Order: sequence, then structure tokens, then C-alpha cells
Amino acid sequence: MRAARFHGQKDIRIDEIDTPTAGPGQVLVDVAWCGICGTDLHEYLEGPIFVPQPGHPHPVTGEEPPVTMGHEFSGVVAELGEGVTDLEAGDHVVIEPYIIREDVDTGPESKTYHLSQDMNFIGLGGHGGGLGEKVAVDRRWVHRISKDVPLDQAALIEPLTVGFHAVERSGVKAGDVALIGGAGPIGLLTAAVLKAQGVTVVMSELSELRRKKAVESGVADHTFDPRETDVVEEVKKLTDGRGADVAFECTSVQVVLDTLMDAVKPRGVIVIVSIWGQRSDFDIHKLVMKEIDLRGTIAYVNNHPETIELVESGKIDLAPFITGKIGLEGLVDEGFDTLIHRNETAVKILVSPSGKGL
Amino acid sequence: MRAARFHGQKDIRIDEIDTPTAGPGQVLVDVAWCGICGTDLHEYLEGPIFVPQPGHPHPVTGEEPPVTMGHEFSGVVAELGEGVTDLEAGDHVVIEPYIIREDVDTGPESKTYHLSQDMNFIGLGGHGGGLGEKVAVDRRWVHRISKDVPLDQAALIEPLTVGFHAVERSGVKAGDVALIGGAGPIGLLTAAVLKAQGVTVVMSELSELRRKKAVESGVADHTFDPRETDVVEEVKKLTDGRGADVAFECTSVQVVLDTLMDAVKPRGVIVIVSIWGQRSDFDIHKLVMKEIDLRGTIAYVNNHPETIELVESGKIDLAPFITGKIGLEGLVDEGFDTLIHRNETAVKILVSPSGKGL
Repeated sequence: MRAARFHGQKDIRIDEIDTPTAGPGQVLVDVAWCGICGTDLHEYLEGPIFVPQPGHPHPVTGEEPPVTMGHEFSGVVAELGEGVTDLEAGDHVVIEPYIIREDVDTGPESKTYHLSQDMNFIGLGGHGGGLGEKVAVDRRWVHRISKDVPLDQAALIEPLTVGFHAVERSGVKAGDVALIGGAGPIGLLTAAVLKAQGVTVVMSELSELRRKKAVESGVADHTFDPRETDVVEEVKKLTDGRGADVAFECTSVQVVLDTLMDAVKPRGVIVIVSIWGQRSDFDIHKLVMKEIDLRGTIAYVNNHPETIELVESGKIDLAPFITGKIGLEGLVDEGFDTLIHRNETAVKILVSPSGKGL
Repeated sequence: MRAARFHGQKDIRIDEIDTPTAGPGQVLVDVAWCGICGTDLHEYLEGPIFVPQPGHPHPVTGEEPPVTMGHEFSGVVAELGEGVTDLEAGDHVVIEPYIIREDVDTGPESKTYHLSQDMNFIGLGGHGGGLGEKVAVDRRWVHRISKDVPLDQAALIEPLTVGFHAVERSGVKAGDVALIGGAGPIGLLTAAVLKAQGVTVVMSELSELRRKKAVESGVADHTFDPRETDVVEEVKKLTDGRGADVAFECTSVQVVLDTLMDAVKPRGVIVIVSIWGQRSDFDIHKLVMKEIDLRGTIAYVNNHPETIELVESGKIDLAPFITGKIGLEGLVDEGFDTLIHRNETAVKILVSPSGKGL
């Protein structure tokens, strides 16, 4: 079968590799659609980051480059491994793409398995990936979804769950006002979760096209260009002078974080959703004097069931965020290059590894 | 009467001023003891900070320098103003030394009055202070205490309440392990609250004398010199490799904050108790990848009743933290200079404005 594999920085190749089979406790998934994530771009441009270094195999998977990429994917159950009895061939599924040590509690009550030592992701640290035609996944990480959800939209459930977890971390409640810094893919999907939970969403974003997408997709109630508008003042107007209840930093840009610090109310919560490549020049005195609560969030932990429910129930429509569909051979030229150089119009580009969906 | 008043930077004078009287709704307090706070030192060395700038009277008090100093004080009720019927002359009291705008809700359910616009403190922003012989205070800010609590120890209830509020902000619970960076007065009093609540306390502190005080006063279970010991490793040993549940930053030193970031468990909470004069070079990527929760805390809000109860019940003994007693005339030479130049042995120096306690 064909798979896009990371061989090294700026060296991703479409390779012919052996088709996997479902081992005991595993599910073989015929990948329908796989989204390209910002993390994939970072690996391509600056990696290996999550991908193991050559000569340093990942302690759980034992793999090192080349590894198959792709962790945002949907598919159809092709084969069930020994002992898997609660799924059927033909079921539609999405993957929670974790690589977790065996001694870690990954049960339904755990709220920390995603923070465990050696945690990595299918599609980065080994165990195949969604940018291959098929992938064998442990039953634990396979979530069945309704056949009423189109498989292309289902591929967006993984990044949507990142947004769901960020929202959960914030402790926001219906009726609150949230400010999101940045309307890239994760900013938009975080907004979608907030809207579905009855929160008023304000977004600050430089790009006119992204602001337009935020409004047209229905996830933002108000959008502002921070070069032209005093976002802090606008948020205060919308909240009777109080300030936003919560804020989400989705840009890894210092001035955006500073704006969020000014825009939240006293005792407000700011969730850092973005990955920062550098330390922050952080206004810790303001954190003290306003009793701000700054919270990190990474990925998700037991959040897939509730996120899937939001999509199955129609509370969130993922269709507006699919801005391109390509085959595996277009991954670098059409996929990565578009996201790197023309990322104002692109939200989520989906890849059909088998080409069947195109 | 005599009062220590701030006239300008490094210019605090013992002045003869008019004795106040209790206006309607007020209580006239005969000050017994008043502690010297780090904030007072900052005003002396670098002020005015909380003290209004000359020519810019505080919007609530209408006062500008000279203002009477002192906000950590205990005393005896000398006189009741019109309408105050629930106290008696001779009652022992401590003061929650707030200056808050009249339109702010300061009721028993409020959790934000301390964060309101124009908030300031008695003894800094006007309305007299504990470094005068007598002070008239609105009934709202007067808390009666048992006569079984010596009045000198009672003067430490104000900074203890700062510690109580910091502990409340952390969400710590009995059985947890807390790491405190810095065993100065606030670090020690925060430790005292934690111990009283059944938390295991680990303190990191450079000064041998301060570490000794932390152990001998019974508030620390373990103390470490971060120059000689790997504090992160020691905390991991004490927590089966997990990391501290919560941490308190009481130094405003970057390397201490970095240690706390490494020493807390995933999803751990770090409370910033200290006042930072500069921005932090903050490892925001670590906050994200460990899902750390960084919380500011300032002063207190409806925390005096519970803090007083901890002292009245004997769960906290404040005696070990009183390291000096002086008269008003010794304020600068014996008080400030000791705290500035010989602050390893001094925790809390108390002033008797009338000299009656000496």
C-alpha cells in the first residue's frame, strides 16, 4: 500500500510499504480522509520534533524515521483483530491517535494519560498513520461514529477535540463571553465548540479572509482586526465594562497574549492552546494584580465521546472548515505548500490516501 | 497623637497629628501592634507606589502624601460611631485594611472586591494607618477576635490572611504535597496555613537561618537549599515520582519559578504570591505540555473570618514569627533598616505606636 512517510526535514516521500494487519485487540482501519495539521508542517519544516530522532527509536513503538504521517483521520473498519467483538467491519470510525505506555491508566476516568511519560501520536511517533491507506490501531483508540456524519467531516473530529479539551480546561459556561486570539484552524474549531455550548465568541484576527470564515461559518459573534480596532475596548463594550470571562491564545504571538491579559475580567481564565517555539516575555505582575488564571492545554483526554456527540447531534457543522481535498501524491505540493504559503484561505486540507474519495 | 507618615521616598517622619474620631458607621481603634510589611519597605525605598502621587489624590480617600502608614495591625475598640451596635468598647479587633469604592459589592459572598477599580489599602492610600496611635475604620473592615489571642500575634493575622487567600486560590486539599519557593514572611505564613489544612509542606530557600525558622516553627516538613540540592528530584522522591500537587512562588525570582514549573506534577497548580517588578522570561511551552495552571493571588477577599478561626482555635501559632518589637521612633532605624539589611533573622517586626506594649 502507499503511505506518506517522514524521512527527514523537508523529506516526506510517498512510499510503497507492506499493508498492516489487525493484531490481537486491534482494528484495521481503511483510511477515508486524513487532515493536514500544523504539527505536520512543523515536522516537515523543522522536524523531527514529535517524530523520533534517527537512531533513537521511540520507547513504546520502537520506531524511528521513516515513519508514516497523519493523525487526523476517519475511516471504515476493514478487519477486527482477535478479541475485538464490539465493532463490525464496515463501521465508520475516527481515531484518538495516542501512543501511550502500557503501564498508564487510560480508562474512562483518567484525566492525565495524555500527559504521561513518552506520550506520542500515531502518525508521528510510529504505529502507522492516517496518511497511509490502512492502519492497525488498538481498540482503545478507535471511536465509532454515526454513518450520518460524512467521513470527510469526521476527519475534523480530531482537531475539534483539541478545541473541546481547551474549552473544558477553561471552565467556561453558557452565557459567558470568550475572546479567541487567532482564527486559524484551532481557533475556529475552538470557537465552534464554544458556540455549541452557548458561549458568545469574539475573535481577534489579522486576516480579513479568516475573519470572514469565522463569521460565515457561524462560529464567531464578533470579529475584530487588532490593527484597526482596540480589541480590549470592544470586549469591554460587549461585557458592560467587565472584560471577557475566558480567552484562548491560538497564535503563539506575544502581543496577542498581552491583549488577552488586558481583555479578560479580573479572575478571568486564559487558556494557551498554541505551541510556542520561544519563551514568553510574560506580564506576571498583571497576572497577580488581576488574579488571572493561565492554563495550558494539550491535545485531549477522554474527550472524544462528547465531541463526537456534538457533531452527530448537528450542534457543530464541520463542512465549512474543509477547504481542499487532495490525493497522497499532492501532499507536499498541494497540501503543505498551500498551508505554508497561502494559509489565509485554507483551513483544513483533507487527503484521501487511497484516492477513493476524490 | 503620633503617627509615622510617608512624605516621600526615604522620607518617613513621626508627626504629631490630630487624633481621629469615629464617624457614623465607624469604629475608633486604639492600635496595639502594627507589623512592617514588605510593601512598606518598597514604598520607603522606591515609592510612592500604592501611596498616591503628590498632586494626585486617591479617588476614594481624596488624600495624597503625607499619609499615615501601616496596614497590618491589631487593636482595642476605643469608641463606636453612630449606628455601630454590634461591637463594644474594649473589644479586641484586627483590620482588613481596604479602601474600596462605595459602588462595589463588599458583601460576604463577593469574591472580587479586592480586584475592583481604585482599590487601595488603609495605611497606604489614606484613611489613617496602623502606624498611628489611633485609627477610625468603617465597621465593614473591623473583625473582632477572641481576647485569648495575644494582641501582638493578632497583628500577624493580616499577612496570614494573604497566605490563606493564596492557599484558597491553589485549590489544595488535605494530604497533598505543596512546594513553596522562598521562606520569607509570606512564604512562612503560607506554609502555616497549608500545615493547618493537613498539607505536606516542602520549602526551597537559600538562607540557612530562614530554613531553620521554617522547621523550628513547625510549618515546613522538609526544607532544601537549592544551591546544594536538586529540589525537583527531592520533591519527586517525596511524591513517588509524581511531582508536587501545588506550588507557591514567594520570591519574584525567575529561577525559582522555573524550579516550581519542573517540580509540580502534570496538571499541577502554581500560585504567584510575590510582587514582580519585571516581566517574567516564562516557559510557556512547559505550561502547555504539562497543562500547568498558573494563578495570580493578591491580598484577600472575605478570608478574614476563616483565618481568624485558624488562630483562635490554636491550629496556627503565630508567636514564632514575631522577631522584634519596637516603638514608633525606632521605625526607620530599627525596623526598616533591619528588614532591608539583616532580613535573614527578621520575620515580622512589630511596632507599638503608643509605646504602651513595650
